[in-house]
Amino acid sequence: MLSRRPAEVGISVADVDTPALLLDLEPFERNLRKMADLASRSGVRLRPHAKTHKCAMIALKQLQSGAVGVCCQKTSEAEALAEGGITNILITNQIVGELKCRRLGALARQVQLAVITDHLDQIAAYSRAAEEFGSTLSVLVDVRVGGQRAGTDAGEPVLALAERVAAAPGLRFGGLQAYNGTAQHIRDWGERRAAYCKYVDKISETVELLASRGIPCETVTGSGTGTHKWEAESGIYTEIQPGSYIFMDTDYAANLDEAGAGWQDFEFSLYVLSSVMHCGEKDYALVDAGTKAVNIDVAMPAVSGRHGLSYVHAADEHGWLDVAPQTPDLKLGEKLRLAVGHCDPTVNLYDWMVCIRNGIVEAVWPITARGTVL
Amino acid sequence: MLSRRPAEVGISVADVDTPALLLDLEPFERNLRKMADLASRSGVRLRPHAKTHKCAMIALKQLQSGAVGVCCQKTSEAEALAEGGITNILITNQIVGELKCRRLGALARQVQLAVITDHLDQIAAYSRAAEEFGSTLSVLVDVRVGGQRAGTDAGEPVLALAERVAAAPGLRFGGLQAYNGTAQHIRDWGERRAAYCKYVDKISETVELLASRGIPCETVTGSGTGTHKWEAESGIYTEIQPGSYIFMDTDYAANLDEAGAGWQDFEFSLYVLSSVMHCGEKDYALVDAGTKAVNIDVAMPAVSGRHGLSYVHAADEHGWLDVAPQTPDLKLGEKLRLAVGHCDPTVNLYDWMVCIRNGIVEAVWPITARGTVL
Repeated sequence: MLSRRPAEVGISVADVDTPALLLDLEPFERNLRKMADLASRSGVRLRPHAKTHKCAMIALKQLQSGAVGVCCQKTSEAEALAEGGITNILITNQIVGELKCRRLGALARQVQLAVITDHLDQIAAYSRAAEEFGSTLSVLVDVRVGGQRAGTDAGEPVLALAERVAAAPGLRFGGLQAYNGTAQHIRDWGERRAAYCKYVDKISETVELLASRGIPCETVTGSGTGTHKWEAESGIYTEIQPGSYIFMDTDYAANLDEAGAGWQDFEFSLYVLSSVMHCGEKDYALVDAGTKAVNIDVAMPAVSGRHGLSYVHAADEHGWLDVAPQTPDLKLGEKLRLAVGHCDPTVNLYDWMVCIRNGIVEAVWPITARGTVL
Repeated sequence: MLSRRPAEVGISVADVDTPALLLDLEPFERNLRKMADLASRSGVRLRPHAKTHKCAMIALKQLQSGAVGVCCQKTSEAEALAEGGITNILITNQIVGELKCRRLGALARQVQLAVITDHLDQIAAYSRAAEEFGSTLSVLVDVRVGGQRAGTDAGEPVLALAERVAAAPGLRFGGLQAYNGTAQHIRDWGERRAAYCKYVDKISETVELLASRGIPCETVTGSGTGTHKWEAESGIYTEIQPGSYIFMDTDYAANLDEAGAGWQDFEFSLYVLSSVMHCGEKDYALVDAGTKAVNIDVAMPAVSGRHGLSYVHAADEHGWLDVAPQTPDLKLGEKLRLAVGHCDPTVNLYDWMVCIRNGIVEAVWPITARGTVL
């Protein structure tokens, strides 16, 4: 179960064996700074989502550039990040089950831990666990913002849960979680903006309702890469949770900007390096990165820096490239960079991230929380 | 990078935390025996595909029930299985790149190792690697059997490669690899059978052509769970390579038998145990198994043993269930077994397989080669 490091520092990217998950550090660092600057200018806290990278080294860099902590989705993911040195974590997910709640209660002794809820039984379970370990768990109420999702309706239902949290031993009411997951990948700028706007007043009214009952919302948190500017400038959200911005992927790149052009707020920094393993056919070729090496659930990867090649299909261990007429011949073993389709589940396929700068391997980072499903 | 075992032996499956990959040992063992019996009756060798399970414990059980060795797809997968005690491995994939070829050459000193080819340059690379380590690598020529796949055309092109293998230092010609990947999931029995039949004569003629040039094919290997009986009874194939039969999945279960009925040659033995994490809505509920816990590339998982619930959509950490009218209420934290949609990439998401018999955890097996992409 101990995987070997896939590359040594100092070697050229041309010598990295494939498939490998590559992080190009310069665009990565520009993305890191750009989001931190935006949050700072807008006067909101930045709490990037670590479900995207699952990597303590990246979380530390986000903290170093101004983030107040990170988000994650799973109890075991929070544990892994805590073991990697992260001390302020919000789990933006309902945690269900006695075993996991007890792990939360225990972890809250080690780090500043928050979690969300949409159910009275869950509040009771969180409270029992925090009491058992003598810890304090911050609990935010999850407001449903669009779509058939988890969370509870804005207004009175939130109040009922918030009051219960505030009264529960071992818990403190942390505010509201309001993530508009449905809006993030709406391609058209106007439609995306409308999907974002639809719930903002309700969140605002809910904050006022809670305040009128003596329950201040110190935090209203949410947002993603697709809508981050709007929550940042809303005057309602106090914290934003973007994840994919550090890497980008072809799914987010298909979003359009206000002018209807390609959306280029962030740069691609994450690639799967692959090798051509079958070529010489008229109109197709195969690479060694299939679905066990690059996720294709929502979007196909794109071949970077080489015209005429489209990644169109994948089997478990093979990727199919359409080869357009007049494309210069591919060579057996030729290495191609694939810009990933969906960054989060692609990262989760790897134990290590090979970090390069100007074509040289500068670091190989463990993906600390890879596979943490619990 | 060391993940903790997700369950202890002796506990009830009801106490296994979720999401967890469950292997129900009784149907698994029946599947194991059924395929071994079929191969034995048909007079072909059985070399199950370990890309499906990536688990040395399962490979050992396959060997104990009569398999001659296993197949795998990746160099690093072969290394992991060798470290897990497997001594006879065929990599049914083209291996490209000097680094990986050298690893093959080295591994061939430790175990009986075979690999396939469809390119002269590759044969040269295999030969250099075997010579460097003073090992003997068995090399089979990959005959393309349907579809836009790797491999070379039957007949003369195979002969040219076989002659080159036979003459190359460090290599021995191991026969033909002829896997009809395109046929496996054709739903209609007659169409599936036709897709299988289409290439059989060509393989047979190629074997004769090679024999006429003094190159005997000691092995003609291929086949998958969807067509296994036909290759087994073909009189041409000497070895079959089914993988999914030990687990089954909803994708294979959608194949039809000769009478147009559901295909039930093998039983479901693999599940993802999940928990309800949001319920109480009119027509949907959420479980804690999304795409990081169950693959949805080709087919959706199916809720087992509970009517009115359909797994219809997944996000990274959430699965959506459609809840039919009159379905008995779900409880928060209720555990549901999901029969997996596609077994191979689902297994690859987990470090451990929780093995149960009559509802009690009997073993927790490491998924030895999980994540071996190289």
